[in-house]
Amino acid sequence: MAKNLKIIPLGGLGAIGKNMTVFEYGRNIMVVDVGVMFPENDMYGIDLVLPDFDYVVENQDKLRGIVLTHGHMDHILALPYLLRDVSAPVYGTRLTLGMVERILDEKNLLHQADLRLIEKGDTIHLGPYRVSPFRVAHSIPDAVGLVIGTPVGNIVHTGDYKLDETPAGGYTTDLEALRSLTKDGVLAMLGDSTNADRPGRTPTEQLVRDTLDELFTQARGQRIIIATFSSLLARLQEIIYLAAEHKRKVALTGRSLLQSVELARELGYLHVPEGLLVDVNANHVPREKMVILCTGSQGEPRSALNRMANGQHRQIRVQGGDTIIISGGTIPGNEEDVGRMLNRLFQRGANVIYGRLATVHVSGHGSRDEMRTMLETVKPKFLIPAHGEPRHLFLHAQLAREAGMKSENIFILNDGSQWVTDGNKAWLEESLDLDEVFVDGRLVGEIGEVVMRDRQRLSQDGFIVALIPVNEHHELAGEPQLVSRGFVYLNEAGDLLDAGREEIKRQVRNGAKNLRRDLEDFFYRETQLRPVILPRYIQV
Amino acid sequence: MAKNLKIIPLGGLGAIGKNMTVFEYGRNIMVVDVGVMFPENDMYGIDLVLPDFDYVVENQDKLRGIVLTHGHMDHILALPYLLRDVSAPVYGTRLTLGMVERILDEKNLLHQADLRLIEKGDTIHLGPYRVSPFRVAHSIPDAVGLVIGTPVGNIVHTGDYKLDETPAGGYTTDLEALRSLTKDGVLAMLGDSTNADRPGRTPTEQLVRDTLDELFTQARGQRIIIATFSSLLARLQEIIYLAAEHKRKVALTGRSLLQSVELARELGYLHVPEGLLVDVNANHVPREKMVILCTGSQGEPRSALNRMANGQHRQIRVQGGDTIIISGGTIPGNEEDVGRMLNRLFQRGANVIYGRLATVHVSGHGSRDEMRTMLETVKPKFLIPAHGEPRHLFLHAQLAREAGMKSENIFILNDGSQWVTDGNKAWLEESLDLDEVFVDGRLVGEIGEVVMRDRQRLSQDGFIVALIPVNEHHELAGEPQLVSRGFVYLNEAGDLLDAGREEIKRQVRNGAKNLRRDLEDFFYRETQLRPVILPRYIQV
Repeated sequence: MAKNLKIIPLGGLGAIGKNMTVFEYGRNIMVVDVGVMFPENDMYGIDLVLPDFDYVVENQDKLRGIVLTHGHMDHILALPYLLRDVSAPVYGTRLTLGMVERILDEKNLLHQADLRLIEKGDTIHLGPYRVSPFRVAHSIPDAVGLVIGTPVGNIVHTGDYKLDETPAGGYTTDLEALRSLTKDGVLAMLGDSTNADRPGRTPTEQLVRDTLDELFTQARGQRIIIATFSSLLARLQEIIYLAAEHKRKVALTGRSLLQSVELARELGYLHVPEGLLVDVNANHVPREKMVILCTGSQGEPRSALNRMANGQHRQIRVQGGDTIIISGGTIPGNEEDVGRMLNRLFQRGANVIYGRLATVHVSGHGSRDEMRTMLETVKPKFLIPAHGEPRHLFLHAQLAREAGMKSENIFILNDGSQWVTDGNKAWLEESLDLDEVFVDGRLVGEIGEVVMRDRQRLSQDGFIVALIPVNEHHELAGEPQLVSRGFVYLNEAGDLLDAGREEIKRQVRNGAKNLRRDLEDFFYRETQLRPVILPRYIQV
Repeated sequence: MAKNLKIIPLGGLGAIGKNMTVFEYGRNIMVVDVGVMFPENDMYGIDLVLPDFDYVVENQDKLRGIVLTHGHMDHILALPYLLRDVSAPVYGTRLTLGMVERILDEKNLLHQADLRLIEKGDTIHLGPYRVSPFRVAHSIPDAVGLVIGTPVGNIVHTGDYKLDETPAGGYTTDLEALRSLTKDGVLAMLGDSTNADRPGRTPTEQLVRDTLDELFTQARGQRIIIATFSSLLARLQEIIYLAAEHKRKVALTGRSLLQSVELARELGYLHVPEGLLVDVNANHVPREKMVILCTGSQGEPRSALNRMANGQHRQIRVQGGDTIIISGGTIPGNEEDVGRMLNRLFQRGANVIYGRLATVHVSGHGSRDEMRTMLETVKPKFLIPAHGEPRHLFLHAQLAREAGMKSENIFILNDGSQWVTDGNKAWLEESLDLDEVFVDGRLVGEIGEVVMRDRQRLSQDGFIVALIPVNEHHELAGEPQLVSRGFVYLNEAGDLLDAGREEIKRQVRNGAKNLRRDLEDFFYRETQLRPVILPRYIQV
């Protein structure tokens, strides 16, 4: 009996991040990427969001392998959480595996991991799947897309890509290899949708290099400080070469940057001319001969650049005349943090260059014209827009229709959707019921909507715990106490709290039926605020 | 004895919004604008931020008048709070006063207000000040800048402006009038800095009109829904005329929009062709002949468009094929709310057009080239960059240096700075010590940093109130109770809470010196979270 292929995204749709896709054919499961999502501003106190991979854990006897497209955290950082529960070989390119080793090592899981290198031109066999990677240009080296041969047809998973013709490092997306791998036709494509709302093409990385070159020239006689993403190795390489050309030394600050540079040098992805790197304390190098590379392009509170902005960096004090370049786009939700950091850097007298002022960053994802070229190269029968929020998926679908695809061959999925094909037709089966899996401190998946709602409400108006002494007849037996934080400034709100205590006594004497609601009403009338109110009777 | 002129910004520097500037000469104070700031994402639970106007209240015997530049909330909405404490004539153009009347009426302060109309060509005398308004193009009609004659020289306050040569409504910034009013020279200029990080010129409003025209044509046969700012009356006018040209009717939804349109029609700032406006329930108008104008361009939770996105709007259900246009820029900090709303609108099948896809909005503030033209028109001796966050003020100063101004003649002030001039030299005197004045529900200024910090911490990890029964010897006299919200999901964390209670008993038996810290350490060890912990001993 012919079997069907199922594709189930567990993440990567609906929110930027936590990419994870399940392929299932008969008793054979393969997983592509195991990433995390970083929390949105209304996910109070949350450190990370994981894909809900219960389905993989429950079916681990079928799991043939995990394939990673590249080393960004939204594609690999949930791996340690998954590998606590299941074991399977993990395939990736050299740099990707290098990054995986580091994150597994931090969780003491490296010794038990089965990591397997894939190289250009390889085809790996995982049960019924033949997986052939092809090189893509992205904001991290060694990124690949995948052509996945299955018994019902070829599936292309683009990974994250742009079609930059002059990328840093010189490796552009290998459309030739893709064409050759797909010459038998493509049944379905999962395509990167990130920039589906950007017309045209994403500017080339070469433009950033040229802009930086010009800024280096303008900054002659001044120190240069550049913040970028630590995984943006191609950018780091450009800056290192530019520093050498402009006869400057480079110092690094920020833990993730140091780790990233060390790893990339070990693996040969970053070439640093002899003697170029100096310690951040190097006093023998004059200021105007220094480039300081640091973390903090998102204004993250504890990043190196933000510590400089706040005057809290141990080694580096920003001074008048310093040129500071923010060479990283602002991730939505971080605008206020970045804005505040910029303000403080300017207040310290620095000359700060950021995205609005010059092309000091470009996206690692292709825009609409590149997405169209990809569609026309792959010519899939079915399209599954991937890697984006719903608006990006819908705009990707719109683009595909403009390119001539039939609406019924485009499938907008949700995380948990089960897309099924027999190689000819495709349809949806009942979705898996997925949870948001929050990581908060040491707790994984224990904090859900209830706690989130409470934190939201506490953040708005604080709380009042009312302690009400009663005797065995449930009669008031003393003065109520109010324990409160985040509601009003207690030292100045004596009258309000006194009135609150009187209200409690009045209600208890009248045989309060719902004291919590009575108090909510009372404090709302008085303040128009709605603190969380928790009355507790104390038997004395 | 010659007197000096002081200029004291009480708001409008350091953060977008709450514009308010004090002019003081001898025993004469004049105030320009009395605006609010809308809270940033980390101002938990706050409704509005007011300028700290204690200085004006303390010196109200000197207050000669309040002059308003235009009717945006960041320039007028703190007026009701100020007019509770002081009385003074309030000057503004017709539309500005119309908006002021509405906000004063809502606070029952209209009857006691002394509102005075200023018209083009007027000069008003307030003690030693001769105030001459000049027309500026901005995103609300009837906006003005001010030339303020003082005994030590002329001061120009630009207000908010752009130099759009084809603005909506046809009224551009009146540089001719400005030149004529300043022919005796200008001592100092307070200049709008909002777009100091945008090179070139702000695109003309005409471009938005043309884009909308094209979108109307493309949407033939479909309903059109447009969200914009209710104060963006020029945009509303364009849309109304476009609807008429394209033979559509217009319906309005959203309270602030209805109010705004009513006011602008009454005062003659909005012309609506006879029979064009219909009720949002109008069943006799086919969908494809409707334009629905609504609030919600910022994804505000209770706005009309967000209610449509969530399927909660009473009259309007978004359907497949609807064209939805977001004709308003996203204010920094609102990106996530807007993104979520867009996602939901797409999920309902709408064709959504927003800023990244087409020029459906332009800023109301001039960009660097326009700021330079303003500088070269006014030729002030001193420049005080105003209306912007610090980065914008510094970039405005940089621009002025590029235009040939001397560094020592450019003053970057903070809110509360006292800038003083004798008409020749200028210097700073000791700053006023200003507070952030938060409005939260009915509380004005009672909630400060302490409450804010508590709310921040509660939002991250919640709280635990530990109730510990003790006897008169302070010995444990029963089982401790934990009252908690926002920390962990209590139904599933029984073991953790049991362990917490055991820890309390152990510590109390050992004569706990600092039980709060002991418990903080305990719960951090167990969870790596830091809830607010409040132990309370209960005498039983």
